[in-house]
Amino acid sequence: MDARFEPNGVVALLTDFGLSDPYVGQMKGVLLARFPAARIVDLAHGVPPQDVRVGAFFLARSRASFAPGTVFVAVVDPGVGSERKLLAAVEDERLYLAPDNGLLPAALDARALLFELDPDRCALPARSRTFHGRDVFAPAAAWLANGGALDAIARPLHGAPTGGPSIRAVRRSVGEVHTEVLFADHYGNLVLTATPDDLGGDPRGWRAEAAGRAIGFVGTYAEAGSGEACALVDSFGSIELAVRDGSAAAELGLHRGDPVVLRRNPC
Amino acid sequence: MDARFEPNGVVALLTDFGLSDPYVGQMKGVLLARFPAARIVDLAHGVPPQDVRVGAFFLARSRASFAPGTVFVAVVDPGVGSERKLLAAVEDERLYLAPDNGLLPAALDARALLFELDPDRCALPARSRTFHGRDVFAPAAAWLANGGALDAIARPLHGAPTGGPSIRAVRRSVGEVHTEVLFADHYGNLVLTATPDDLGGDPRGWRAEAAGRAIGFVGTYAEAGSGEACALVDSFGSIELAVRDGSAAAELGLHRGDPVVLRRNPC
Amino acid sequence: MDARFEPNGVVALLTDFGLSDPYVGQMKGVLLARFPAARIVDLAHGVPPQDVRVGAFFLARSRASFAPGTVFVAVVDPGVGSERKLLAAVEDERLYLAPDNGLLPAALDARALLFELDPDRCALPARSRTFHGRDVFAPAAAWLANGGALDAIARPLHGAPTGGPSIRAVRRSVGEVHTEVLFADHYGNLVLTATPDDLGGDPRGWRAEAAGRAIGFVGTYAEAGSGEACALVDSFGSIELAVRDGSAAAELGLHRGDPVVLRRNPC
Repeated sequence: MDARFEPNGVVALLTDFGLSDPYVGQMKGVLLARFPAARIVDLAHGVPPQDVRVGAFFLARSRASFAPGTVFVAVVDPGVGSERKLLAAVEDERLYLAPDNGLLPAALDARALLFELDPDRCALPARSRTFHGRDVFAPAAAWLANGGALDAIARPLHGAPTGGPSIRAVRRSVGEVHTEVLFADHYGNLVLTATPDDLGGDPRGWRAEAAGRAIGFVGTYAEAGSGEACALVDSFGSIELAVRDGSAAAELGLHRGDPVVLRRNPC
Repeated sequence: MDARFEPNGVVALLTDFGLSDPYVGQMKGVLLARFPAARIVDLAHGVPPQDVRVGAFFLARSRASFAPGTVFVAVVDPGVGSERKLLAAVEDERLYLAPDNGLLPAALDARALLFELDPDRCALPARSRTFHGRDVFAPAAAWLANGGALDAIARPLHGAPTGGPSIRAVRRSVGEVHTEVLFADHYGNLVLTATPDDLGGDPRGWRAEAAGRAIGFVGTYAEAGSGEACALVDSFGSIELAVRDGSAAAELGLHRGDPVVLRRNPC
Repeated sequence: MDARFEPNGVVALLTDFGLSDPYVGQMKGVLLARFPAARIVDLAHGVPPQDVRVGAFFLARSRASFAPGTVFVAVVDPGVGSERKLLAAVEDERLYLAPDNGLLPAALDARALLFELDPDRCALPARSRTFHGRDVFAPAAAWLANGGALDAIARPLHGAPTGGPSIRAVRRSVGEVHTEVLFADHYGNLVLTATPDDLGGDPRGWRAEAAGRAIGFVGTYAEAGSGEACALVDSFGSIELAVRDGSAAAELGLHRGDPVVLRRNPC
């Protein structure tokens, strides 16, 4: 069914579970019980609760850091227990598992091959109605990372997957790009939906306008003065607002979804 | 002494240490230095500080996710440095290490075999008085997970272990179950001390009463309307109060220990 | 160049990245892609943002828990993207990677051998200007933990490294030691810059004065009454202020950098 995926034993977990509760630990217990040689990596568990869009962004911008052969399990699943499907996708020699809620279409390219998991062929014998990460996705990932055939637990998806939010949403006009805050990271850096491509590839000659302020671009945090707000291309390849030695989220008072305009400087 | 435990190399860590400090990392360093092939799993480190009861609950409801042969290290240890004993327990082909503070009796079945660790036979040469997780439990776990004999570092416990809080505390009368909030999880879901067994096995026909509101049961989060409070059987096998797309802890204003009544609906 | 380092395959990560974002996960992806047998340990990711001093303290007080052969990667890097150097250090058969910002000199002994990494010989082909943890340090660590030669990617450091903050800063006079709060841990315990050495090796006969209160020493938390403030030698080997069953940070209202005086009791 899919000759292009050869597992390397790595299973990368991406969820909105946080790390205070035993939810992630239970998934790892199930994975290791079924595939003792699994090398499990926490990609991130701090996706804001039920925020499919940020989950898709984290996956899209992190997957190239992992080798071909990696199985990704992305569980941001507000619809758990409903009739929503469970998807598998193969792209670039990596395999992805996630609920059918738009996460994979937003994170992957259009050429990804999509499959529908059959829970009856991979779930734990007694599965709950509220935790398919542990009861369906973990045993499916163990099976696949251990070299089990995808077509033993899934079939090609009929029809289109559920559409997802765009992680690249911007609105462009001449010399102007309307973007928004996608999320604030641990440092309070504000990651925007815009990328340098939206600015013709190069942010030089542009500024950001947000919270009533004009904010200039720099090449790296260290070029800004201490306490100074700046815009830059970050390690996600996105445009980001930051405050040197401070928190842009706190200083600018901006939150997820708030608008930011990027404008070309007058000559 | 105990023929029923064959280690599989997995060591699962459960603590109230949080993840911001290097406490968990130091335990892992000691474990790997003594048993390089250990496969270490974080079960959870977000037990509320010194909350033995929640620690016991996390262990009780997570251990079945791990394969036989797992060594669990559960360090919620307000009495560290005092004369409290350090216990080992064997049950269902899994081995458990914890201070003698009620955690293991609350988490395990009455048929668990109990042992008392001899720190002089397993601790690091220079052990602190305040961090036995690193200085005693980690080297003991390394020894046991690597196939070392339990009777080389422990002896059968004489007398009863220290009694613990019940993770199932409820008070029942006709058509009524008095329970309480055990903890709020990462989503703000309120996990109660009651289980479906307390309702005769099936929550249909019951409602929850809390914070002056009557809250109906659903089968899964997705059956509630957005923003609606609901009660359901969660992935721990417990009864839980949740708010769809929101936080029950915040919406209902309930905290750990607050009372909740489950009442049979009138016919 | 350095015959004394034989890798054992363990890579310990210490950062100020937090765990909510995928930054740590991306580093692990890169590490495993380049060295699949790496055994990666999270030493800690909760260093306060850009606090080189606390990062140095965590490293200094944790490294002995790890076996010889460990590669430590310490990324607290406010100067990322500037001209600051990237250092490697070898000491006691362990290898350390960090930016040249004072972290390593503060954490290691003066006899550590210091090297300067050549990013062009170890970085990912396309490296960002803002995330050298992923793009330079992770591939360098993979190379070194896998047995690659240090002199293939680094050369001996010419000149002195950038000086760092002291993690032991105290001012002593007769019967008096002026110290400060280095950080508050997960429990609200206040770790000071002083150690028992500053008190002649033994804190008996001393008291702490902070927030207008005199606080006596105990041997371990369990010796204090519930809710009582106490001072003790903690598992870092530092002097710490704690409140039994509570948070010293909250109860005493003290923060990082606040002064504390240790005074010998009158006879």
